[in-house]
Amino acid sequence: MLAGIDLGGTQVRVALARSDGRLVASVKTRTATLPNPQAMVDWAAGEIDHHRGREKVRSITIAAPGPIDIKRGVLVNPPNLPWHNVPLAAMLSRSTGAKVQVANDADMAGLGEFHHGAGRGTRNMVYITWSTGVGGGLIIDGNLHRGAHGTAGEVGHMIIDPNGPLDSCGQRGCLEAFIGGANLARETGHPAAELFAEAARGDPHARMVVEKAARYMGLALISLTNVLDPEMFVIGGGVSRSWALVQPTMLETLRSSPFIKPARRPRVRRARLGDRAGQVGAVEWARINQ
Amino acid sequence: MLAGIDLGGTQVRVALARSDGRLVASVKTRTATLPNPQAMVDWAAGEIDHHRGREKVRSITIAAPGPIDIKRGVLVNPPNLPWHNVPLAAMLSRSTGAKVQVANDADMAGLGEFHHGAGRGTRNMVYITWSTGVGGGLIIDGNLHRGAHGTAGEVGHMIIDPNGPLDSCGQRGCLEAFIGGANLARETGHPAAELFAEAARGDPHARMVVEKAARYMGLALISLTNVLDPEMFVIGGGVSRSWALVQPTMLETLRSSPFIKPARRPRVRRARLGDRAGQVGAVEWARINQ
Repeated sequence: MLAGIDLGGTQVRVALARSDGRLVASVKTRTATLPNPQAMVDWAAGEIDHHRGREKVRSITIAAPGPIDIKRGVLVNPPNLPWHNVPLAAMLSRSTGAKVQVANDADMAGLGEFHHGAGRGTRNMVYITWSTGVGGGLIIDGNLHRGAHGTAGEVGHMIIDPNGPLDSCGQRGCLEAFIGGANLARETGHPAAELFAEAARGDPHARMVVEKAARYMGLALISLTNVLDPEMFVIGGGVSRSWALVQPTMLETLRSSPFIKPARRPRVRRARLGDRAGQVGAVEWARINQ
Repeated sequence: MLAGIDLGGTQVRVALARSDGRLVASVKTRTATLPNPQAMVDWAAGEIDHHRGREKVRSITIAAPGPIDIKRGVLVNPPNLPWHNVPLAAMLSRSTGAKVQVANDADMAGLGEFHHGAGRGTRNMVYITWSTGVGGGLIIDGNLHRGAHGTAGEVGHMIIDPNGPLDSCGQRGCLEAFIGGANLARETGHPAAELFAEAARGDPHARMVVEKAARYMGLALISLTNVLDPEMFVIGGGVSRSWALVQPTMLETLRSSPFIKPARRPRVRRARLGDRAGQVGAVEWARINQ
């Protein structure tokens, strides 16, 4: 059997699947109930043991927030968890006897959407998660592209305007500095969820802020189309719940490029798997690397 | 045997190689001596026939300026040749009996540098040609990535500043609009070669223009590193001849990103094959696709 674990700042999810990828169980708990990494590992190992029946679990992938060391399976210093340099792969492998990989959560969500969500049937797809921060995962010729050091797909840190605001990453004018939920909240003085709710109710200032953000995302889609020539963008993350607010401006911006002829213009789709994308992708990665 | 043809605005080059890729002959002529596409095809076919001896040439790749239709092997409307919708692959296949592919010239130069030039030994490399225009070729996990429509690698058309100048492609604030030789010439009123020569002589205004261009290239390298996580950038094209003028600022800009830790910072290398990169890559592509 296979297992996928999605370690998020709010929830931890565990999914078990047969070796062909078919899901047999899925459970979750609040991250806050797990006081430390060992408690998380113990909980996940317990759930896996409980649901595996008589089957052996051979391969597990943990989708975790970056930065991570994919070679050693170490969580380095995630922005939304007070855990540092945790050798998660070794810890979970000790508890379960399985081969354990730690992978980037946005990569896993992209892989999930590619195999079982909005990106099914494509070969070249860019997944973008638009939420507090902005991340992504690249599917190149049918495979996840992680790059030379496992950090490919950091689309939120493309420089969109070198004179733009300073991002928390230290770069000036990153896409994330313009459109990330945390930065929109700082800019407007309201939590991003409130801002999008106000825009949905028709508040003119909120609408303007949201439209500007969607336009910057559209500019990033232009750059990514010219660099990668994908068939499709799949947009996930919290902001994708406000699809009707952001989709028209994103598309209009992408269409405004005379360099990108309609025949090669990628489709722009909303992610389909919601909060399950990470665990679905993690199971898939466990299957590929079993 | 294999052949690679590099169809440039100034010169056309033909290279013949054994099926393992070893070069046996290389010839060139001025593009201006060939009045039309059929004359180019006749010349190339003649040279191939002359140099093949008793061997059969099975696979040929023509490296041509974009836009091209890679599926049908058609040159669409190159910016520096008055040829339109020319079915080059069919024409040359008729003359030679070989399987003929038409491929993007920057892709082929990138492939050449990857297999036989500065990028040897890497698995993930971004080739950038910095000349009149700015183009590129992506090597992803050891393979050329051409994208869903064969237009991947158009790094010159990443948007670097949405309030920047209008590029000839119709987009505002493309990398090419800031640093392409044609745009630098328009901006300064001097041909780009003269501008770089003046900068080399120490002219302060020319130096400032060149350094600004190198800084913008450095910003593009930051964005590309975050998206693709390559091991190496290989910079070719006419501007790479002024390496000492542009390299320090490009590197300094790349190093200025606190988000890109030294351990994952790509090397930045000057291309090694010069004008031969296209033909070398075309032979390699003919070998891969024989």
